[in-house]
Amino acid sequence: MYRTHTCGELRLEHKGTNVTLAGWVQTVRKFGAITFVDLRDRYGITQLLFGEELNKVLEDNPLGREFVIQATGTVSERSNKNPNIPTGDIEILISSFQVLNKSAVPPFTIQDDTDGGDDLRMKYRFLDLRRNAVKRNLELRYAVNRAARNYLHQQQFMDIETPFLIKSTPEGARDFVVPSRMNPGQFYALPQSPQTFKQLLMVSGYDRYYQIVKCFRDEDLRADRQPEFTQIDCEMAFVEQEDILNMFEGLIKSIFKDVKGIDYTEAVQRMTWEDAMWQYGNDKPDIRFGMQLLNLKKPATVYSDKTDSAALINGADFKVFDEAETVLAIAIPGCSEYSRKQTDELTEWVKRPQIGMKGLVFIKCNTDGTYKSSVDKFYSEEKLKAIADAAGAKAGDLVLILAGAEERTRKAISELRLEMASRLGMRKDDEFKLLWVLDFPLFEYDEEGNRWVARHHPFTSPKPTQIETMINNNPVIENAADYLNHPYASIKANAYDMVLNGNEIGGGSIRIFQRELQEKMFAALGMDKEEQLHKFGFLLGAFEYGAPPHGGIAFGFDRLCSILGGSESIRDFIAFPKNNAGRDVMLDAPATIDQKQFTELQIKLDLK
Amino acid sequence: MYRTHTCGELRLEHKGTNVTLAGWVQTVRKFGAITFVDLRDRYGITQLLFGEELNKVLEDNPLGREFVIQATGTVSERSNKNPNIPTGDIEILISSFQVLNKSAVPPFTIQDDTDGGDDLRMKYRFLDLRRNAVKRNLELRYAVNRAARNYLHQQQFMDIETPFLIKSTPEGARDFVVPSRMNPGQFYALPQSPQTFKQLLMVSGYDRYYQIVKCFRDEDLRADRQPEFTQIDCEMAFVEQEDILNMFEGLIKSIFKDVKGIDYTEAVQRMTWEDAMWQYGNDKPDIRFGMQLLNLKKPATVYSDKTDSAALINGADFKVFDEAETVLAIAIPGCSEYSRKQTDELTEWVKRPQIGMKGLVFIKCNTDGTYKSSVDKFYSEEKLKAIADAAGAKAGDLVLILAGAEERTRKAISELRLEMASRLGMRKDDEFKLLWVLDFPLFEYDEEGNRWVARHHPFTSPKPTQIETMINNNPVIENAADYLNHPYASIKANAYDMVLNGNEIGGGSIRIFQRELQEKMFAALGMDKEEQLHKFGFLLGAFEYGAPPHGGIAFGFDRLCSILGGSESIRDFIAFPKNNAGRDVMLDAPATIDQKQFTELQIKLDLK
Repeated sequence: MYRTHTCGELRLEHKGTNVTLAGWVQTVRKFGAITFVDLRDRYGITQLLFGEELNKVLEDNPLGREFVIQATGTVSERSNKNPNIPTGDIEILISSFQVLNKSAVPPFTIQDDTDGGDDLRMKYRFLDLRRNAVKRNLELRYAVNRAARNYLHQQQFMDIETPFLIKSTPEGARDFVVPSRMNPGQFYALPQSPQTFKQLLMVSGYDRYYQIVKCFRDEDLRADRQPEFTQIDCEMAFVEQEDILNMFEGLIKSIFKDVKGIDYTEAVQRMTWEDAMWQYGNDKPDIRFGMQLLNLKKPATVYSDKTDSAALINGADFKVFDEAETVLAIAIPGCSEYSRKQTDELTEWVKRPQIGMKGLVFIKCNTDGTYKSSVDKFYSEEKLKAIADAAGAKAGDLVLILAGAEERTRKAISELRLEMASRLGMRKDDEFKLLWVLDFPLFEYDEEGNRWVARHHPFTSPKPTQIETMINNNPVIENAADYLNHPYASIKANAYDMVLNGNEIGGGSIRIFQRELQEKMFAALGMDKEEQLHKFGFLLGAFEYGAPPHGGIAFGFDRLCSILGGSESIRDFIAFPKNNAGRDVMLDAPATIDQKQFTELQIKLDLK
Repeated sequence: MYRTHTCGELRLEHKGTNVTLAGWVQTVRKFGAITFVDLRDRYGITQLLFGEELNKVLEDNPLGREFVIQATGTVSERSNKNPNIPTGDIEILISSFQVLNKSAVPPFTIQDDTDGGDDLRMKYRFLDLRRNAVKRNLELRYAVNRAARNYLHQQQFMDIETPFLIKSTPEGARDFVVPSRMNPGQFYALPQSPQTFKQLLMVSGYDRYYQIVKCFRDEDLRADRQPEFTQIDCEMAFVEQEDILNMFEGLIKSIFKDVKGIDYTEAVQRMTWEDAMWQYGNDKPDIRFGMQLLNLKKPATVYSDKTDSAALINGADFKVFDEAETVLAIAIPGCSEYSRKQTDELTEWVKRPQIGMKGLVFIKCNTDGTYKSSVDKFYSEEKLKAIADAAGAKAGDLVLILAGAEERTRKAISELRLEMASRLGMRKDDEFKLLWVLDFPLFEYDEEGNRWVARHHPFTSPKPTQIETMINNNPVIENAADYLNHPYASIKANAYDMVLNGNEIGGGSIRIFQRELQEKMFAALGMDKEEQLHKFGFLLGAFEYGAPPHGGIAFGFDRLCSILGGSESIRDFIAFPKNNAGRDVMLDAPATIDQKQFTELQIKLDLK
C-alpha cells in the first residue's frame, strides 16, 4: 500500500504519528523557505508542510497541480487551524516524498466552480470526475443503489439477472440491434427494459424480483435523455395495485431515510389521471405548491365526468375566449402589483415558440378589493371577481388566463404554473413531495393510423371491471371523428406512476396474465396472430402453464438520483454520459469499424 | 394481496388460524371423499385438505398440475406428519378456493429429477426455473451477489456504472457491435469488460471501484461459454500486488462464510506460474489433492530454472521416450492392482481425440515391493523403482507416463491427473481450495505473426524490475526460431489468477500507469502510433494528468457460482442462458429484423 492513511482521516489525536499519504496536489503555496501543499484524495484534503531542506528539492523539481505524490512525515498541530475541513487542525511535517506521476496542466480547474465548459469537461471526463461536485453526485448514486437493494432484500426481493442479447420486438421505442456473427443475417436486440423476462420470472414462481439494470432505447435524444439508462426494475406476484403502491412508496421512503436522512412519514398522496389533468394540466404535477387550474372551458379529449366553469366567461362577446377550444386560468399568489413591464414580460414568455400561445390575459386582484384586467372592456369587475374567486385567487393575487387549442393550451398553462412557482421560490430542492397518479387510460388514439396504441405497454391490464368491455368489443374504429365514443376510449388501466416534485420517477402496472386477454390486447394494437406469435409467442406460451396474477414497477434510477441531488440534469449523475447526439466525446464513440468486422458479420453499409 | 402467508411458513403454532395461500398445484391425491393438494410457491410446500363438500366441486372442475389457485382455510395439525418438510406438521382444512389460472400439462415434470431433456427445458425455461434445483442455484447466485457487495462496501469500494455502448477496440476477443442510427456508418461496441473505464476511474481518484456487470464476447462458443457473462469487476489505486491479493482473498473468504457457512481461515496458497506448470502441467491446478508431475524431460517453452529428471529414462534405448519432446509422469495412489482391462481402458482414454496421445506407459508399484511395467523390456526393476520414487509413488501406487509433443503431452497429463482424481473421489464438491497463481509471462509468442501478444491484456504492467528490459529492447523478433531468447520472452507480468478447485475464478494485474510504458506496450503488440491514438487515445491522454499506481481483478461470477453450487455447468446458474450456438431457444433469438430497421440503420446484409 502506498499510504498508511487517507487524506481525510487524520485528526489532532494522531499528533506525533508518522504517516504516509498519497494523492493529488490540489494547491502549492510557497512562503519563503517553506512550502504548503494541499494533498487531495477521494476522502478529503490534508495540508503538507515541506520545510527548508525539502524546499530546495522542490525548487529543482517543482510540484504542479494534479501531480500524484507519496509523502511521509509526522502529524503536527497547525498554528493556523482551518475550521472548514475535517483535517483542518493538523498538518504533516514532511520528511520525504516522491512524485508517483506528473501531470500536464489540466484544461480546466479541478474545483466546484470550474472554469471548464460543458464540452471540455465531457472530453476530459476523467478530470471532471475529480471535482468534488461530481464526486458527491456519484456517491449519492451509490447510496441510492445501496438503500434500494437493502430495502428490497429485506422485503424478500431477489436480484435476478436477465439477458442483454434478446429479440427485437419494436413496440413504441426503437431497438438497438446487434448483428450475430454465428447466425448470419440475424440480429439480437438490446432490451428496452426486462419487461417480458420479469413477467416470465413471475410465471416461474420467483414472486419478488428486482434488478438495477441498464436499458437501451434508440430514440432521437431530447435534452437530458440518454440512449442507455438505468432502471430499478421490480415485479411481484399475487398482488393487487394496492400492494404495489404500499411496497414501493416504502422503497422511496426508505431511500429518503437512508440517503437524505428524511423521515417521510406522511401518506403518499394519490390522484387519478383525470384529476391530475383537470387540476394541473399535467399527468406529473408538482404538488409542492397549489395554483390549481380553473377549467373555463372543458377539454374534450380527457374528461368524462367533470363540469367546467364556462358560464363565467360566456356571453361577454370576447372572441379570444369564445373561439378557443380550451380556456384555463391559474392564480399566482401575491403578484397583483406586477407592473406593466412584468405582465408584458410574462406575455412574451408564453408567446415564445416553446410555449406557443398567442397571448395572455390577466386579472389583478388588488389588495383594496378592486379588480383590474387586460380584458376590462369585456368583463365587468363583478365578472372578473367571479373568475378570480373560482380560480382560488385572494386579494393580492394575479390571475393568468390562457386560451387556445386544447393540448397546446394545457401544456402552456402547466409550464406557466411551474415557471411562476420557480420564480416565487416555491420549488425548493430540499423539499420532496411524492404523488401516485392512478387510473391512466389504457389506450391512446393514434390519429395517423386511426388505431389504438398502448399508453403504457401492451402488457398492462385494464381495470378488472372493464375487462369485459375490452373482450366484447371490436377494437376497430369505424368512425375516426367519433373515436372518443368508441368503448375502448374510456377503458382505464391498472397502471400507476410515481411522481416526485413534478417528475415521473417510476411507473408500472398490474399485468395481463391470461393468454386470451393478452391476445385481445395485441390484436387491439393491430398485431395479427402471426406477428403475435413471432414476437411474443414465448410469453403467450408461458401464460398457458399457470401464470399467477402479477404486477410491477420500474424507477428511472438516473432521474431519481438527480432529483435527490437537487439537479435538473441526469448527466451530472452518470459517470460517463453521452451527449445529445448519442456520442461519447471522450472515447469518440461510436466510430467506424474494420472491414474484417463487416466481413465476419456479413453486413455492409448502405448509406443514403 | 392474494395470500396471508406463503407456502413455507405455517407451523403448529399457527394451529386454528384462518389463512389464505396462493401458489401452484404440485400434486393432487384423492382418497375417497377427500382430496389432498400440495400447494407450492417460492418458499415451500403446504398440504391442503379439501373435505367432502369441496370435493364435489373438484369433481366437476378438477385441479391439474401447475394450476394456480388461491385457497382459504384453517391451519390444523396433521395426523400423519411429514418430517421431511418444514410445514410437515400441519395442513390447511380448506373452506373456499378459486382457480386463478389453469395450466396445460407441462412438457416435463417440475421436479428435481425431471424427465425433461436439455433442449426441452431450455425452450420452456420458464417452467424449468420452477424446479427446486434451478431455484436453489439462482438463490445461491443472489446470495453470492449480496455477500460480494457487502464485503466490498465495508472495504469502501463504490459501485460505479460504466457504459455499455462504447468503442470497438478489438484486441484478442471479438467485439459485438451496434450500428448507430444517429451516426450513420458508425458503430458502438459492447464492452468485453469495463477495463479502460475502471482505470479511468482510478485516474479520477475513485480509489476503490467495483461493479457486478455484464460483459460481452463474440467468440465461437466452447462448451459452457456464454456470449454474455457477468463479472465482479474491481479496481484499486495506490496498491501493490500484495494489497490486491489480501483484499480479494478476503472477498472470497467472506463469500464462503456468508453463502456456505465455511470458515476458510487458512492462508491462501501461492504458486508461481512456472511452478504450476512444472508441478501440475496447468496454470489452474486443482490442489485439493497431490499427484504432482514428474518432469522426465524438460519442456522447452516454459521453464527457465528447472532441472528435469531425464537421467532416469535416458540410455535405455526406448525410442518412444527418446524421441519425445516431453515425458511426464504421475503417481496414482492405491491403483497398483489395476487389471489389464483397467490399464487398457486408461490407454484408450488417453488415445481419444480430445486427449490425443499415442499410448500410455505404466509402472505398478506392487505392495510386495516389486515393480511391473509395460516397458519392462527397456527398464530394469531398479530403474522402474527410481522413476516411481521420483514420481512420489509409494507401494500400492500406479505410475502413469505420457510422452509426446510438448504442449499436447502437458495438457494430456493434466487431464489424466484430474480424471484419475475424479475416479478416486478426490474432487469433492464440498471441499474448497483456493490458490493464487503469480508471475505469469507478460507476453505470449504468436507463431503466425512472429510477434508478441499480451498474455493477459495490454494494460498489465511488467514486474517493476523488468520495466527497463521492456523499455530498452526492440520488440521485433529478428530470428523466429530463437524467439525464446528474445529479452521479452522472459519478462514476467505483475499479474495474478485466483484458482478454486482447478478453475480460474478470477484474474487481474497491476496496471501500467505511465504513458511512455503504455505506448511501448502497444508498440510491442504491433500497434502503430495512429492506431494507438485512434483506439486508446483517451487512456493515453488520461495518463498525462496524474494517473496513480493502480491494479485490479475481475471474477467470473457465473463460474464462481457454479463451483460454489457444486456444478460443472454455468448455464445452471443463469436464469436465461444461451445455447452453444449463442441462441436463446425460448425467445428464438437472434432473429431477422424488419426492412424498416435496415433502412433506418443504413446497413444491409452481405451474406456469403
